[in-house]
Amino acid sequence: MQTTTQIYGIRAIIEAVNSNEEIDKVFVQKGLKGDLIRDLENLLRKKEITISYVPVEKLNRLTKNNHQGAVANISPISFHTLEELVEKSQNKETPALFLLLDQLSDVRNFGAIIRTAECSGVDGIIIQKKGAAPVTADTIKTSAGAAFKVPIAKVEHLKDAVFYLQASGIQIISATEKTKTSVYDIEFTKPTAIVMGSEDRGITPSILKVSDHSAKIPLLGEIGSLNVSVACAVFLYESVRQRMKV
Amino acid sequence: MQTTTQIYGIRAIIEAVNSNEEIDKVFVQKGLKGDLIRDLENLLRKKEITISYVPVEKLNRLTKNNHQGAVANISPISFHTLEELVEKSQNKETPALFLLLDQLSDVRNFGAIIRTAECSGVDGIIIQKKGAAPVTADTIKTSAGAAFKVPIAKVEHLKDAVFYLQASGIQIISATEKTKTSVYDIEFTKPTAIVMGSEDRGITPSILKVSDHSAKIPLLGEIGSLNVSVACAVFLYESVRQRMKV
Repeated sequence: MQTTTQIYGIRAIIEAVNSNEEIDKVFVQKGLKGDLIRDLENLLRKKEITISYVPVEKLNRLTKNNHQGAVANISPISFHTLEELVEKSQNKETPALFLLLDQLSDVRNFGAIIRTAECSGVDGIIIQKKGAAPVTADTIKTSAGAAFKVPIAKVEHLKDAVFYLQASGIQIISATEKTKTSVYDIEFTKPTAIVMGSEDRGITPSILKVSDHSAKIPLLGEIGSLNVSVACAVFLYESVRQRMKV
Repeated sequence: MQTTTQIYGIRAIIEAVNSNEEIDKVFVQKGLKGDLIRDLENLLRKKEITISYVPVEKLNRLTKNNHQGAVANISPISFHTLEELVEKSQNKETPALFLLLDQLSDVRNFGAIIRTAECSGVDGIIIQKKGAAPVTADTIKTSAGAAFKVPIAKVEHLKDAVFYLQASGIQIISATEKTKTSVYDIEFTKPTAIVMGSEDRGITPSILKVSDHSAKIPLLGEIGSLNVSVACAVFLYESVRQRMKV
């Protein structure tokens, strides 16, 4: 599956950004000077698109074309707004089910989670613009194509998304070991958004604090945690189970 | 983590096999002739250890030492017998929980499953000697070290293991889409062994046939299946959930 697209050349990238193409990251040649590159850098900063400064050899490996010192990775999927996702979830009969990924960094975990989300009827996945794993060809492959089916929204700050969801009547359940409540004691039949943390640091404390509930998965052995995509599946399928009984 | 061990040299490998070292696979130089290599081949066939015939360049890449045309991979963990595992499970208070992996081929899926098994209190994992993913350094890494904690048994034929478990009062639950029964309708509080199939072909029909129950995970989207390690987690944690309520 060939899903990653690139654009190269400074003017072409400026044009793409202005046309609201979904650009994940721009590689810019170290030490490059001039008005045009400055325009591109300013535009990328304004749009909060990540810039990575690399030696020219790296750019030459990325493309055989005349890149003029800049290569951009375009996201293979298009993103939605949080408002769109919430509105759509309110127009259907079943209660909303959202997934918030807080700084998840591994693209394979991301892909696996998207696949499980699709299978468990998630209405949308919400990630933060900065620090989140990008949607790459690997993400798409691990998702078994589910990345084309589950709508994904990118937000500036995940905490604002939490407030917006709560204001829309959706409870926030954080998956964390730092609680006494078991996932099996949570009522998932209400409109719900589940927050999963990053592989190494878990959920940001400020997000844990504003969640409606925290819940953990019982661990019966000595290993201190499940893989995040497995933990996510346990949460999502507990929700599926409870909703099937209603 | 360096966990894969190699031995090289024909006599050394013969010695290791006779000492019951856990050998996963032996690489033998294509076209190699002589009494000694014939002895090794006969011994490996007798012990049902996989032989892979490769060009000498491959062996030179595997080791810088004088390999004499043969390099063996030793398993980083030691295996148990099915009889040991069953006996041990019968001497504890909680009902037995086993996991049978039918021709699972991906080492990362295998590792992820071992990790979830450890966390969900599985008494042992049973795999078939032929066709199963080996326990490699990658398996161990993906398992987060759980491969050193959950006992694993290698059996000649998985179907015989099924009969042995049933004769020991353990019900066999096969995870498959080819059934109308949901995983949520299965009683996991009895002594139970869960069978997970291979990534591409699912569970062998002859094993499905002798299982006590088949059960599926509800899929609410368009994607036809979950990742096998995710599906395994849903089964194992439904068992954990039911057993917590008792």
